[in-house]
Amino acid sequence: MTKKRKRRLKTLATNERQTTAMNNLTSIVGKIYDQLDAGSVPLMELPLRSKKNIEFDTQHNVWKYGDLRTNRTAKTVQGAQMMLRTVYTADFINEMIKENKSSTLREMYYISEGWEHAKFNTQDESNLLAEDLEIISRCMREDFKLRPEESGAHVYGNLDISTMTKKGMKKFNCIDDVAETGFAVPYNVEKENFEIVGSDAKFIMAIETGGMFARLIENGFPERYGAILVHLSGQPARSTRRLIKRLNEERNLPVTVFTDGDPWSFRIFASVAYGAIKTAHISEYLATPTAQFIGITASDILNYDLPTDKLSDKDVGALNAELSDPRFNDGFWDSEIKAMLEMKKKSEQQALAKYGLDFVTDNYLPEKLTDMGVL
Amino acid sequence: MTKKRKRRLKTLATNERQTTAMNNLTSIVGKIYDQLDAGSVPLMELPLRSKKNIEFDTQHNVWKYGDLRTNRTAKTVQGAQMMLRTVYTADFINEMIKENKSSTLREMYYISEGWEHAKFNTQDESNLLAEDLEIISRCMREDFKLRPEESGAHVYGNLDISTMTKKGMKKFNCIDDVAETGFAVPYNVEKENFEIVGSDAKFIMAIETGGMFARLIENGFPERYGAILVHLSGQPARSTRRLIKRLNEERNLPVTVFTDGDPWSFRIFASVAYGAIKTAHISEYLATPTAQFIGITASDILNYDLPTDKLSDKDVGALNAELSDPRFNDGFWDSEIKAMLEMKKKSEQQALAKYGLDFVTDNYLPEKLTDMGVL
Repeated sequence: MTKKRKRRLKTLATNERQTTAMNNLTSIVGKIYDQLDAGSVPLMELPLRSKKNIEFDTQHNVWKYGDLRTNRTAKTVQGAQMMLRTVYTADFINEMIKENKSSTLREMYYISEGWEHAKFNTQDESNLLAEDLEIISRCMREDFKLRPEESGAHVYGNLDISTMTKKGMKKFNCIDDVAETGFAVPYNVEKENFEIVGSDAKFIMAIETGGMFARLIENGFPERYGAILVHLSGQPARSTRRLIKRLNEERNLPVTVFTDGDPWSFRIFASVAYGAIKTAHISEYLATPTAQFIGITASDILNYDLPTDKLSDKDVGALNAELSDPRFNDGFWDSEIKAMLEMKKKSEQQALAKYGLDFVTDNYLPEKLTDMGVL
Repeated sequence: MTKKRKRRLKTLATNERQTTAMNNLTSIVGKIYDQLDAGSVPLMELPLRSKKNIEFDTQHNVWKYGDLRTNRTAKTVQGAQMMLRTVYTADFINEMIKENKSSTLREMYYISEGWEHAKFNTQDESNLLAEDLEIISRCMREDFKLRPEESGAHVYGNLDISTMTKKGMKKFNCIDDVAETGFAVPYNVEKENFEIVGSDAKFIMAIETGGMFARLIENGFPERYGAILVHLSGQPARSTRRLIKRLNEERNLPVTVFTDGDPWSFRIFASVAYGAIKTAHISEYLATPTAQFIGITASDILNYDLPTDKLSDKDVGALNAELSDPRFNDGFWDSEIKAMLEMKKKSEQQALAKYGLDFVTDNYLPEKLTDMGVL
């Protein structure tokens, strides 16, 4: 690598969030060093990351960790090994930030092959440590330059953004500068990598399936109603949820979620709106508690006489679990879940094609969005 | 819709392939009508679409249908229903082409809810009929404006293309005009929708995992070695295989395939190179028989001392099946498959990170590509 290129990379690398991440990780490792230096057995304090320490914060409507703490000490072999891994991982992340590299979580697991006693036995271990470091350092995995395997989300609508390319930040309009597939969302949508420049859109619509996302684009729905479409592609990635949250906060745009009508899709909605247990420590970054569910609801199945499939035993179990999930603890969800259990049927968003390819954009969505007060 | 917009859509819609598709489908329906008009029971001839009529064409190195034919007649209720469905489906496709609409295969299944006796019972039935119509009409599903649910493939490299957007055909460079995620490939990559404008690249590299695709982009591999990267995202979609084939033929670029080292990944290679049984009728559009496999091979696992996992019973079964699969009937595959069975181990492409994030682009790929005569 030439010196000039190296210098350019260095400039790119030192953004504020990453500097904070390096400082916070260095301080974590520093504390371990200081304890060893003072002749004491190193100790790290962490919130207890088990279900009993996760609470639904009814004020902010998101999942949060409670006050229970756990201590990790180097007294046991296992504890010492965890400490060693923490140091190696912090070092690896620092190196990546300095060299403007990133790594998948899977690569980090394999990288540890060279760490001898600090080697991870499974990728679950390395993924968990990355989350621990997020919690202790109060930074995000994206600031550590750790990325998931696949992202897959796409955006379509009259939205100007500026995103990092090989040639620096570049502006895109998410209608004019994209093919019919929309704009592919990068794994890091924090400000330094992804700027929301402007939009005249009136609302966001997050959509579960690629088929429906393509349908709405083809039918000209975003242009006609001022919608920004976000393809969730099943359970949404962190970057997808973060992007929705930023659009909601920075542009003050209401968020709507349009999924299949089954218990698993209700959970997709809940993870967009209220967060997930696994990411409870960063709910305030990812969750959009004001998000509204469009459908498919149990009522839709009846009102629109939609083609259905029978609920499986697993579906019924999931619906029953949702009845005691605090995220679904309101009148709307209580009655919808009970109605679905009673009719024993589920339906898909593409089932609306029963009435033709335009029904969803000419009838269903305008009707539902008007009822919800979005249009 | 305004008249002006309608006229524009009409112009967009009438491209040569689609006109051919409409004509051919109309002629199929016309034959059914003529037979009824002449007082005879309608009859349609199709190649037999079962395994015993699929042959490996050793001259062209792809799967092909043989000479066995089957007759579909309206003598039975089931046969008459199939004929009715054929007519309805042809009509639906004609309408879509005329109105410049497209539909997912799932939507077509739901659309048939309104077809009374011609209603499909399962999506398998409607998918199969779409393939039948491809065979009889000698057109492609994409010409019928039928699309799969998700596509997901992305391209990155110094390649200028022109693709259909809401505002007509638009030029993109697949490095300068894309974010780090690359260019998202549309479902239809036929000429009227997707033009290959130019490229100074030296070869194509199709990559199985998103993690490795991102690694090569981050490491500057495409720029340094003149590679166009195509993310396969598991078993590649038709549009992905078609794009690889077109790049190979029109730009005369050698194709290499870089996957995990396990029997399922070997099949991904085989579907890129030799086609799949399901799409035997369009192998000449989709398969690139000169494609070369880079790895991960069983030899790589030994030569590079890669981290491995044990073969499962299913893996062993799949490897044994490959030994009698004509697509793997050569010296290279025979010895690699037997070596993998003997060592009882598999490995992932990201396992190369054992030696650091740059090893794959500084060592592994240059070494292998030089051996293969690509570099």
